[in-house]
Amino acid sequence: MNQAPGFYRYKIGDITLTAVHDGFARRPIEGLVRNAEFADVKKAMEQAFLPPDALNITFTTMVIENGGKLTLIDTGNGDSGAPTSGNFLANFKAAGFDPKNVSTVIFSHFHGDHINGFRLKDGTAVFPNAEAMVPAAEWAFWMDDAKMSAAPEAMKGAFAGVRRVFGPIAKDVKQFEPGKEILPGITPIAAYGHTPGHTAFAIASGSGKLMVVSDITNHPALFVRNPDWSAVFDMDGAQAAATRRKILDMASAERMQLAFYHAPFPATGHIGKSGNGFELVPVQWTPAI
Amino acid sequence: MNQAPGFYRYKIGDITLTAVHDGFARRPIEGLVRNAEFADVKKAMEQAFLPPDALNITFTTMVIENGGKLTLIDTGNGDSGAPTSGNFLANFKAAGFDPKNVSTVIFSHFHGDHINGFRLKDGTAVFPNAEAMVPAAEWAFWMDDAKMSAAPEAMKGAFAGVRRVFGPIAKDVKQFEPGKEILPGITPIAAYGHTPGHTAFAIASGSGKLMVVSDITNHPALFVRNPDWSAVFDMDGAQAAATRRKILDMASAERMQLAFYHAPFPATGHIGKSGNGFELVPVQWTPAI
Repeated sequence: MNQAPGFYRYKIGDITLTAVHDGFARRPIEGLVRNAEFADVKKAMEQAFLPPDALNITFTTMVIENGGKLTLIDTGNGDSGAPTSGNFLANFKAAGFDPKNVSTVIFSHFHGDHINGFRLKDGTAVFPNAEAMVPAAEWAFWMDDAKMSAAPEAMKGAFAGVRRVFGPIAKDVKQFEPGKEILPGITPIAAYGHTPGHTAFAIASGSGKLMVVSDITNHPALFVRNPDWSAVFDMDGAQAAATRRKILDMASAERMQLAFYHAPFPATGHIGKSGNGFELVPVQWTPAI
Repeated sequence: MNQAPGFYRYKIGDITLTAVHDGFARRPIEGLVRNAEFADVKKAMEQAFLPPDALNITFTTMVIENGGKLTLIDTGNGDSGAPTSGNFLANFKAAGFDPKNVSTVIFSHFHGDHINGFRLKDGTAVFPNAEAMVPAAEWAFWMDDAKMSAAPEAMKGAFAGVRRVFGPIAKDVKQFEPGKEILPGITPIAAYGHTPGHTAFAIASGSGKLMVVSDITNHPALFVRNPDWSAVFDMDGAQAAATRRKILDMASAERMQLAFYHAPFPATGHIGKSGNGFELVPVQWTPAI
């Protein structure tokens, strides 16, 4: 007895987007937010009708069809994550896609839940015909051996993971800077803080636009609602909070549709103001694409 | 290029529920709410990031699996509704169900979008082995020829529709009263006002419970948010508003999960308080059932 496959299609102008679910990882609440009282975090969970002790952090990647080309932003956990994750490939195929037809994989940043789906643990390239495009600032940080040596022990695995995924194709990886269109309709936007090169993406076609905001927040019930809270995943908490507030303010003012990586599936909606923070208003599911 | 099939499974104790989407009908906003200024209705739509002129009213039926028996609550529009509706059967089959295996169809009330899926226009019984269970008060109203004669012209079609669907099996239809369990774990609850016999259903298994609230509201962005607003679909506006507020108050106080017929798919969530009204907090989609 299965759930329906985890994909959701929608259009931005002539571009077809497909949100593809990679599953979830259960994470205790305790210690998740750096700068909030545990009681306040529990209260935010309660107000969102989420369990008081642990959060299911979900992973939703973006597939972009434009002009006959198939592009991904991020790849999910592959076979390196929690047993409840790694569903990207099954859901991607259920949506009618073939990994061989992916021409480009764009990465928002180099955390494992975004890059590990690009290469299986045995070394297999999951998208054999795809070019990899990465933020130059992200590449500069994680591929710097001096930074790896200087990193705390707990972070060394993340550096090794980046090398595992990108090492075999390092010379072919295409680095990009923010602010300039890198593929038709896709423009990277610096959204630093979560990681040194963490990037959002403006998607535009005709009068339609949307921003793929990657990890500017973890779960919206906590971090859209309370944008000044810092998740332990944010490498530079202050910079990440400034980025978060700036993008959520802009999205609210412009009534722009956003796509998140860690919002509940299908992980897209609009931003309303709510008290000192914001709220994510999910799109209404529709079979009409 | 299709959307993923419109079904969503979840558990209440040992009972498996499957929300099955029947599609939607587009309805102009103007004239939709009897007792609110049009500008206020447009503002509520804007706050929900819905279009300012028309609402896609969605239809989501409930499938209940308990002890090897397959039960439905309501059936969708069948082939009698808008071209964008009538998807129940396709989604029901995509969820792995066979209409022949349905043992009981329970009806919440007799509006066409709830009953027409039970019988095709050509007379075919869609669930050939199913017993029909209906609220006694609803049956008494709609099957009363004197009430049909006395009804305004615009309502005569609704009376005729009830006869079209139930006429061929009228002697076998099982009528029930509210307040007593009618099938294991399923107890009807009087929720009169939307129609004379409009019924909600408590679903209970072990410590798990949920209420199928049927049409106590139309779209939650309007009528959960503003429970005193009356949709033109409510036959007794004042009684429907009292029922709506009573059930939403109870759900909020008890933090009980609800399933709606006209909420965005998968049409289930919890009720928080918000100003003088409420808000529906949808459940987080999960592949884990």
